Amino acid sequence: MLYLVGLGLADETDITVRGLEVVKKAERVYLEAYTSILLVDKAKLETFYGRPVIEADRELVETGSDDILANADKVDVAFLVVGDPFGATTHTDLVLRARELGIESKVIPNASIMSGIGCTGLQLYNFGQTVSMVFFTETWKPSSYYDRVKENVQLGLHTLVLLDIKVKEQSLENMARGRLIYEPPRYMTVAQCAGQMLETEEEREEGIWGPDSLAVGAARVGAADQKLVAGTLQELSQVDMGAPLHSLVLLGRRAHDLEKDYIRQFAVNGETFDASWKNGKYGSS
Amino acid sequence: MLYLVGLGLADETDITVRGLEVVKKAERVYLEAYTSILLVDKAKLETFYGRPVIEADRELVETGSDDILANADKVDVAFLVVGDPFGATTHTDLVLRARELGIESKVIPNASIMSGIGCTGLQLYNFGQTVSMVFFTETWKPSSYYDRVKENVQLGLHTLVLLDIKVKEQSLENMARGRLIYEPPRYMTVAQCAGQMLETEEEREEGIWGPDSLAVGAARVGAADQKLVAGTLQELSQVDMGAPLHSLVLLGRRAHDLEKDYIRQFAVNGETFDASWKNGKYGSS
Repeated sequence: MLYLVGLGLADETDITVRGLEVVKKAERVYLEAYTSILLVDKAKLETFYGRPVIEADRELVETGSDDILANADKVDVAFLVVGDPFGATTHTDLVLRARELGIESKVIPNASIMSGIGCTGLQLYNFGQTVSMVFFTETWKPSSYYDRVKENVQLGLHTLVLLDIKVKEQSLENMARGRLIYEPPRYMTVAQCAGQMLETEEEREEGIWGPDSLAVGAARVGAADQKLVAGTLQELSQVDMGAPLHSLVLLGRRAHDLEKDYIRQFAVNGETFDASWKNGKYGSS
Repeated sequence: MLYLVGLGLADETDITVRGLEVVKKAERVYLEAYTSILLVDKAKLETFYGRPVIEADRELVETGSDDILANADKVDVAFLVVGDPFGATTHTDLVLRARELGIESKVIPNASIMSGIGCTGLQLYNFGQTVSMVFFTETWKPSSYYDRVKENVQLGLHTLVLLDIKVKEQSLENMARGRLIYEPPRYMTVAQCAGQMLETEEEREEGIWGPDSLAVGAARVGAADQKLVAGTLQELSQVDMGAPLHSLVLLGRRAHDLEKDYIRQFAVNGETFDASWKNGKYGSS
């Protein structure tokens, strides 16, 4: 049996009781370690589980999945995923491959950022489609996300923006020379995301958002030191929210008063928040 | 401290390790028991936790929240919520009330149907806003949900439809006579939801969906006997998916091939599925 086990969002104790039972009993335990991270390292997980954990990088999952699945028709294999196994990154390909090999799968759900973002007090009912933001470079500033956010904005809906992480990436030079040297991991911050959004708007000039648009930054959702900040994109582009992971929500105009009361608690600046709320005609439908 | 603890979706073992620690140590433990249910009863939870649990009905939460919060500035109170505390039903009002009383709150996230629905293999990125479906009566068939689903359909996005549950409801007669007699609980089925959707379309006649529109029914998401069915709304209006809870996803046209491959595994009828996929122009963007 292949078990896909969600680990939740913050630390080793966010696994469910059922998930922990599976991990303790499985023959092999893999940790998917390239689309998201827990706020604790692998060693801590191994101590907590009392057993070794194999780190599964993108290459192993995408091209070596048969190694992961080896023998799983006879023994139990646990594949651990930060968040929920079918959350922001889905592992349907692994499940489909298992099925082709005649291996059954079971999923142990857990919190995902896609629902965990409800901690902002913004109602999940009022969210449109979720988008991802990649790191811009000097020469590559993809703006396809703009069109999807625009659809949400035009309907007055909130948008959850998931922020890029770069783990175990090679520089172009090292890749070209075939050197297996990896860059230090990078995690996009709320400030970088807000800055990139302003950059895209300047390029597109469709007025979908601007420096005064309201947004909420969320850091380390579900952890003891979770941090939420509400403010304009301009304000958020200068905010320091500390260690990863970060996410951002662009506020939709259908936001209602209970949502306003909640997020205003953690406004960077209550006055600019109120002014932007009023001028942006938030709260209308 | 007020702890809002997510219980996840299926049974007593879906609580997280961290959540369980909180429940074991809290002075009082409440279970929110009117917006969703676990697939096990309160007695089973009490045995698992080794302590009593107080059932919190709508009245207690909405008008008696100060009883729940009594003394919580000095002792720990755990408020258990099926799914995630900020998922489909948010408990921001309780947190705001706690704050007014000078009581700190912490949230222990867990799986919510809003992310758990990813078990269908449909990508959460491709979902628009979520809607709720209430039980129609002879005289009351609210169709405001139609307008929101329409927005999703026009963008080609999937829609998660959450289905009504009626727990501890009085009949009109018993309410009028002040008799505290409650009706047996009712949980909407996928078949009822699909039937009501066809009824609304017949009334609205805007052609947003029809009997051949594809949808996925999900029952007992996250449980050992989880069941998924894909088919046309006509087919789903006749399907029997067993015990609650049920949810439905109306498929959006932006659905892509990996999603198709995944849901076709559990099609009611492969041939009608393929015909509807083709005729409905699914897979185009």
